[in-house]
Amino acid sequence: MTTTIFAAPGSHAEVEEGTALTPRFGADGLIAAVVTDFDTGDVVMLAWMNAEALAKTIETGEGWYWSRSRKELWHKGATSGHAQTVREMRVDCDQDAIWIKVQTAGTGANCHTGRKGCFYRNVPVGQAAGTETRLAFTGDEPLFDPKAVYGDA
Amino acid sequence: MTTTIFAAPGSHAEVEEGTALTPRFGADGLIAAVVTDFDTGDVVMLAWMNAEALAKTIETGEGWYWSRSRKELWHKGATSGHAQTVREMRVDCDQDAIWIKVQTAGTGANCHTGRKGCFYRNVPVGQAAGTETRLAFTGDEPLFDPKAVYGDA
Repeated sequence: MTTTIFAAPGSHAEVEEGTALTPRFGADGLIAAVVTDFDTGDVVMLAWMNAEALAKTIETGEGWYWSRSRKELWHKGATSGHAQTVREMRVDCDQDAIWIKVQTAGTGANCHTGRKGCFYRNVPVGQAAGTETRLAFTGDEPLFDPKAVYGDA
Repeated sequence: MTTTIFAAPGSHAEVEEGTALTPRFGADGLIAAVVTDFDTGDVVMLAWMNAEALAKTIETGEGWYWSRSRKELWHKGATSGHAQTVREMRVDCDQDAIWIKVQTAGTGANCHTGRKGCFYRNVPVGQAAGTETRLAFTGDEPLFDPKAVYGDA
């Protein structure tokens, strides 16, 4: 059912230069959603939406996703209180990626580790890649205690 | 060969709170790469990297990807002159997504349509999703003529 919420993609030109939203879900039924913080512009999450999650995000103006680990529809913030209000949504050229700009309730954290965003480690560039690559923490500290919110699971 | 460039992911805690880069490629051997413009902060592309592309990006400090449509390693800008210099790279909590901040040569365009970025259409939120959803162009105009660079293909 959920795959028929949106019309099927048309021609190459229609997909790229048209005004119909015809998202191109992958073989797994999912589309990538880049989530940035409306106020800072930082990328805070890379998440996934199925057709139902995308439709609910559009309708409600809040972030809904498909949890690939839990294999279930996921209303962001339902457990943690960190609901995301979508201030702007965009789709890319070939309509296989979504970009949303959000403002997040509660502590403002978007990452399950308790941090503002998921990208809290830098990868050094300009050196040979491989096992010697050492990540550097950006200093973003958790805004809440994940164990207190989610338990020890 | 390319899948052995990086060490295999360790424990949950090591992946999320450690300093080893152990990217988690999907079943297709790819990892999602969010690309933002270093100067404006805008998301300009959502692209894909295999292990070789990720390693080359780290080593060279320029954007390398895996083209899913052409099924080949892709040095961004090799054809169009729009090479991307990576100013910063990050990895997310579960190491299945990369974020790079780039400065792009030539006209500064990152999208194959000739525009600065791929997300040049807004999706309205707060209404029933479906075939009535109409995209609105942001006004980002092409910075070069794709046909002149890539041909009519």
